[in-house]
Amino acid sequence: MSRSFSRSLALFERAARVIPGGIYGHTNPAATLPMGSPYYAVNGEGCRYWDIDGNEYIDYLCGYGPLVLGYRHSEVEAAAEAQRAKGDCFNHPTPLMVDLAERLVALVDFAKWAVFGKNGSDMTTWCLQVAREHTGRKKILMVHGAYHGSHAWCTPGHGGLIEEDYAHIHGFRWNDLEDFERLLKTHRGQVAGVILTPFHHPAFADSALPAPGFLKGIETACRREGAVLILDDVRCGFRLHLGGSHRVFGFEPDLICFSKAIANGHPLSAALGRPELLKAAGKVFLTGSFWNNAVPMAAAMSTLDVLERDDVPALLAKTGALLREGMERLAAKHGLPVRYTGADALPFMSFGQERNFFRSQTFCRETVKRGVFFHPHHNWFLSAAHTPADIEETLLVADAAFEVVKEEFAAAASGKAGAPR
Amino acid sequence: MSRSFSRSLALFERAARVIPGGIYGHTNPAATLPMGSPYYAVNGEGCRYWDIDGNEYIDYLCGYGPLVLGYRHSEVEAAAEAQRAKGDCFNHPTPLMVDLAERLVALVDFAKWAVFGKNGSDMTTWCLQVAREHTGRKKILMVHGAYHGSHAWCTPGHGGLIEEDYAHIHGFRWNDLEDFERLLKTHRGQVAGVILTPFHHPAFADSALPAPGFLKGIETACRREGAVLILDDVRCGFRLHLGGSHRVFGFEPDLICFSKAIANGHPLSAALGRPELLKAAGKVFLTGSFWNNAVPMAAAMSTLDVLERDDVPALLAKTGALLREGMERLAAKHGLPVRYTGADALPFMSFGQERNFFRSQTFCRETVKRGVFFHPHHNWFLSAAHTPADIEETLLVADAAFEVVKEEFAAAASGKAGAPR
Repeated sequence: MSRSFSRSLALFERAARVIPGGIYGHTNPAATLPMGSPYYAVNGEGCRYWDIDGNEYIDYLCGYGPLVLGYRHSEVEAAAEAQRAKGDCFNHPTPLMVDLAERLVALVDFAKWAVFGKNGSDMTTWCLQVAREHTGRKKILMVHGAYHGSHAWCTPGHGGLIEEDYAHIHGFRWNDLEDFERLLKTHRGQVAGVILTPFHHPAFADSALPAPGFLKGIETACRREGAVLILDDVRCGFRLHLGGSHRVFGFEPDLICFSKAIANGHPLSAALGRPELLKAAGKVFLTGSFWNNAVPMAAAMSTLDVLERDDVPALLAKTGALLREGMERLAAKHGLPVRYTGADALPFMSFGQERNFFRSQTFCRETVKRGVFFHPHHNWFLSAAHTPADIEETLLVADAAFEVVKEEFAAAASGKAGAPR
Repeated sequence: MSRSFSRSLALFERAARVIPGGIYGHTNPAATLPMGSPYYAVNGEGCRYWDIDGNEYIDYLCGYGPLVLGYRHSEVEAAAEAQRAKGDCFNHPTPLMVDLAERLVALVDFAKWAVFGKNGSDMTTWCLQVAREHTGRKKILMVHGAYHGSHAWCTPGHGGLIEEDYAHIHGFRWNDLEDFERLLKTHRGQVAGVILTPFHHPAFADSALPAPGFLKGIETACRREGAVLILDDVRCGFRLHLGGSHRVFGFEPDLICFSKAIANGHPLSAALGRPELLKAAGKVFLTGSFWNNAVPMAAAMSTLDVLERDDVPALLAKTGALLREGMERLAAKHGLPVRYTGADALPFMSFGQERNFFRSQTFCRETVKRGVFFHPHHNWFLSAAHTPADIEETLLVADAAFEVVKEEFAAAASGKAGAPR
């Protein structure tokens, strides 16, 4: 049952000599499960992957979102391969760019145009600029703790920033329409746009679905004040609804950003918008050396085919519900106060009021030992490759992991030496 | 000889309905050869590509740089394919990230560590932040007219910007050390970093190699003032010297940014730095959903293999010299005052003191008609796939194109009706 991570650790030691921190950013192991987790992946198939030590995992992170159809999906990879046989990077776009724009515009009800980038952050940042261009205003309102990318205005990091980077970015509390209205009033006539995710999915905290009227209230206020409403659907996009996650929550933004799952792991992002914003969109420069690359667009077309044909959002809701129900049942069985929040297709699990995530870390360490990869403080992701049998196998592992959590922390509570705090 | 672009034009019409401007960014046809150029590519092989109308071109743009070994290079694509069979996007980096960091650090003399992104702009911007973190200062000095990416601090666009985006970015003139020293003096004690390209390659203007002492003078001043010197080698990197273009011009930066040619068209960028900057580098958050993707890193390892084995910079210098000598000879034959500037591996050609690029546009339109793709106001790129025979074929076409330029503009000068101005 116990697994070795010796190759991960040895390679990490080599890495630390030539890469700041060895591994940086969202896959930094210090930010996941130090010493109790693989650091390097080598192979993937369906809902499973293998680390450098040969350990196999049922995966509930899906590359932090992109692999909505699972690793190495045969149809997507065949479409990508067909394009590769012609070429990827050119002096011009390929016809695929037009096909994909038309396809997305047809999917997203309010949108009449699309642009493409490589990172989610490319698109959220560009949408901010479109909002500023459209309104001639500077201020952007966002939810405290929300992640919108790694550009300076929104990065969760602190290093290298100057106050000008976020001078006109102001935060309000999720699900607090009063706080939002207060902020809007404070900056009346200066607010270019409001950016938010369809539900609140911060790291290190429970997820929160929108309260009734919250998002619609923001939409109404934006229309009233002439501010642009930007939906950051980078993380949720294509897992809740193929037409944009606003469709699930009963509101309508002006701009929407996609990335992550759009091409099942191929690097691509997109932003779509209302016709009223077309003129401003045409004025905000955007480009990158690989932004027209054809292979990710071919992969996206195929990913959308499969997502539509198999009604993947419905599938994820179903499989996700199986996982949620199982986890809640097992937690209850072990008398553990587990909170299971967010959407079933991308849920977040925590242990009651625990703020330090020690129980979460123990739980994940124990499932990792047994071949199931969960993240202790980032939301999880389901994929279409997860079958009910995979969920069943997962729940057997979770049962054992909950048992260890119960024992370890009961021991801690009774003050036994060496027990975790 | 005349070519049809009817499919390009028809598709562009469709595109304009769903994409702002139809095609945006650096491949925007309004910014190249409106109506006289292909808008969409479909296929590439070696130094040639085919547009949507089936027209074939010998290509001197190489996807605006990336295709240093030519389209669909068999060894690079085989390496990419081998990695694809395992997977691309994972929850963790793959061992390739460590291999590639070690490889690059071994190549670049002053560097001891590396990080990776997707866009050149991701890396130039991150380096700015590292300089600010390292120095605790805000100001960045850059050369007027230099392109460092599409992030707000450096975008050549105007839309959607606010003054805070570039509040601490100050410009000096290329090859004017006095102007630089004056600027440095004005902001003494506040300059975090200086960013520059190894030679000046703006769009819409001749390229300029560094004057003797210019770059070394900047390096010396940076050391004296404690400012970080950032080399943006995104465009020139791997075409002039495999260890960084500073090796060609006798100076040493503190940070260097690569992208474009690093993986022969696969989306990847990298920054490398001195050990003194490791601590600051570790503090500036950087990440993206696809930044650890393994396939572009496998492609980069193979690209570097071929670049080293075949001494591609020497090859490009040789083929590039053939092109330059031929173009200069032909221009002289036609009595046209052609200026051929920059490095032979990525040259820029203009017609004397002409500021409107009309002759350049005519020249390019005529070569495009005859199957050679040149850009009228952006530097060109040679690749290892260009053979002396390709250059010879190109020069035959150029001869005819120069002839048309001479005739058209002689007619214009003599005031004939309908002639171009």
